[in-house]
Amino acid sequence: MTTPTPDFIEAIRATAASLRDELVADLRHLISTPSVTGEEGAVQEVVEAQYRRLGLEIDRWEPRVADLADWAEHVTEVENYDGRPNLVGVWPGAGGGRSIILNGHIDTVEPGDRENWTYDPYGAEIVGDRLYGRGSCDMKAGQIANQYAVRILQSLDVRLNGDVILQSTISEEDGGAGALAAVLRGYRADAAIITEPTELAVVPAQGGSLMFRIDVPGRSAHAATRNEGVSAIEKAALVLAGLLAFEQERNHSIDHPLYRDIANKIPINVGTLRAGTWPSSVPELAVMEGRAGLVPGEDLDTFKAQFLDRVEAIAAADDWLREHPPIVTFLTGQFAAADVPVDAPILTTLASAHKALTGAPPAMTAVTYGADMRHFVQAGGVPCVMYGPGDVRVAHYSNEFVPISEVVTVAETLALALCAWCGVAG
Amino acid sequence: MTTPTPDFIEAIRATAASLRDELVADLRHLISTPSVTGEEGAVQEVVEAQYRRLGLEIDRWEPRVADLADWAEHVTEVENYDGRPNLVGVWPGAGGGRSIILNGHIDTVEPGDRENWTYDPYGAEIVGDRLYGRGSCDMKAGQIANQYAVRILQSLDVRLNGDVILQSTISEEDGGAGALAAVLRGYRADAAIITEPTELAVVPAQGGSLMFRIDVPGRSAHAATRNEGVSAIEKAALVLAGLLAFEQERNHSIDHPLYRDIANKIPINVGTLRAGTWPSSVPELAVMEGRAGLVPGEDLDTFKAQFLDRVEAIAAADDWLREHPPIVTFLTGQFAAADVPVDAPILTTLASAHKALTGAPPAMTAVTYGADMRHFVQAGGVPCVMYGPGDVRVAHYSNEFVPISEVVTVAETLALALCAWCGVAG
Repeated sequence: MTTPTPDFIEAIRATAASLRDELVADLRHLISTPSVTGEEGAVQEVVEAQYRRLGLEIDRWEPRVADLADWAEHVTEVENYDGRPNLVGVWPGAGGGRSIILNGHIDTVEPGDRENWTYDPYGAEIVGDRLYGRGSCDMKAGQIANQYAVRILQSLDVRLNGDVILQSTISEEDGGAGALAAVLRGYRADAAIITEPTELAVVPAQGGSLMFRIDVPGRSAHAATRNEGVSAIEKAALVLAGLLAFEQERNHSIDHPLYRDIANKIPINVGTLRAGTWPSSVPELAVMEGRAGLVPGEDLDTFKAQFLDRVEAIAAADDWLREHPPIVTFLTGQFAAADVPVDAPILTTLASAHKALTGAPPAMTAVTYGADMRHFVQAGGVPCVMYGPGDVRVAHYSNEFVPISEVVTVAETLALALCAWCGVAG
Repeated sequence: MTTPTPDFIEAIRATAASLRDELVADLRHLISTPSVTGEEGAVQEVVEAQYRRLGLEIDRWEPRVADLADWAEHVTEVENYDGRPNLVGVWPGAGGGRSIILNGHIDTVEPGDRENWTYDPYGAEIVGDRLYGRGSCDMKAGQIANQYAVRILQSLDVRLNGDVILQSTISEEDGGAGALAAVLRGYRADAAIITEPTELAVVPAQGGSLMFRIDVPGRSAHAATRNEGVSAIEKAALVLAGLLAFEQERNHSIDHPLYRDIANKIPINVGTLRAGTWPSSVPELAVMEGRAGLVPGEDLDTFKAQFLDRVEAIAAADDWLREHPPIVTFLTGQFAAADVPVDAPILTTLASAHKALTGAPPAMTAVTYGADMRHFVQAGGVPCVMYGPGDVRVAHYSNEFVPISEVVTVAETLALALCAWCGVAG
């Protein structure tokens, strides 16, 4: 890799600045086109038009369930992907350079309760540097940054040696069937970057997750004679307390170099609890659903066994639960953790480009959430990192936003990184 | 009251025995006609035909919401009672005697999950002495016992001095609008007996109940960064623990002579809990609904204030809840407790009749559940007790049943008690 000249860096900046309004307009177009997981058809039309403007070679296809069969347990089961195309746009290199995938998933979570939004979730409103809307940071901004990396280079008449493969994939929010389908269709490269919201940190490790359901039995009785019954809610509270103790122990015992600064490396979250059917009956069943985190290096099956053992131990300490044990089910959405070595070339390239553009090295951090990284790493054998605009903490909530300046910075960094990675022709 | 002769008691027994098959057939007819609260129309047709066979003077009417307006907070609010008639059948006395109301509500709770039933909830199957089905003990058996008390006396050519007012009232399970409407229509008497399932105990006191909802706030976050959020489920568990402590304190501090032998005099039951929307989000809201018990003599408004104070104190002890207090709402279904003096004449009469028929005095006990007693006592000024066949502990659950022999005993006891209470003519 050659050190970029100050002039070239300045040219990237100036070009990005001149394209800023178009970038914002394109991003607003994506945000204002709803694309909740399962309903990605309309937005892919918009992305395809954007890819065509860049002159990319388009591949658009609906994944088939049968093609994913060998990896079925790594994604959420669905009946089919009809009306939900994946989209790939290739900017072919001149030859002889390293290829790269720039991935962005195009689906979003539901907007949730509109009353919690100050801004229309599909209004794509701009307030200062913030662009608001569902999917703004997670991750339509990343998708647009990927496109504008190419756009900037094209504006500068730069031709790369290696292929740049842009992807707009579906179904990340429920397990990443889209990214997996792209890998299985044959899209591999020498590296992949996913522009998920990392606040411009370079992220070489993602946590895994195990979705679980625990049915906690009680015994029904009328509220007026509640001592005749056993409250499933009280017993669920015991199980919850036991799981939180388990989380604490795991946080102490697990050591992964990239996770040392993270207070809760492997969060165990009970996200839903449904118990009882009538205020004046003792609830006979409580159903908890949740998500337990894993760090890279942990094996899913080993962890499942540990989890089951722990629930059994919690039950063994209670007279009722010992005789009426909670039933644990692992749900679809069992996501392995993944990481790439901290000295992987794509990391160095990305970090150098970021430093050249911003003047400081990027933070390098692991994350506890799961994303499509694992599909590239595990199914594809492609070294993959995340680096993108916005803060994941606002990603799934009301008033999600992305700082426009960060979207521009990511586009600039990627443009520079592509030159270093793929090589500049001629 | 005169002591009944052994011959008369024997005649009652013999007549009841000769009518046993008819009693069972009539009860099975009621059980096999579904009458979940809100859908009492069909079963009232059956009861009306039964009342007509007894030659009673029929009054059948649909209560009007406007007529109940002054007592609206004592029953569940509904839009109207169309298609849900109340039914009263009067057996007029010769004059000069005390009148009595024999009340039975005709509505039942839902059968619930059929898989939990060994017997068809509407099959009215007989196994040994047990008659199974939804509403068998709660309280179609009581309704039939009331009818057969009259039937036995008519078979013996007994004419009473006082009026006997049979009632088949709707909507007990959600607050007793039917009994209240009967009282407000003008049906008063010198005493009332409700043949709710008491296992042949005489019950002069019923508990009150307050239905509540508590919204416990959390703060949402992605499960992977759950320390950024606050789990509403964990906070709800704190509130629950606080309410259980409150229940324990109240059990120690409350002293009511009829409740001394009851381990949990004023149960606080959290019957439902709904929290969170997604396993991998920190739940931002937990909603608990429940029922708190009161003993007779406690004032509903005073207790409400105590309940609110307690929830506030629970919140004050937690950093999050102090700043984000749970919101308490009292639901419709605020039922006052009620009792009659333990030396009330109707108690003595009933106890004597029971002893004459069975050879032993009945148990006299309070109950912690609410029923229509309070409407007779409070809205009507009518001394009211409960005495009936079956066990309330099976009342709302799968495989509800009533012992047929107890239905017969109640019919016999009532027949004898009516003679003593109303006086025998001629």
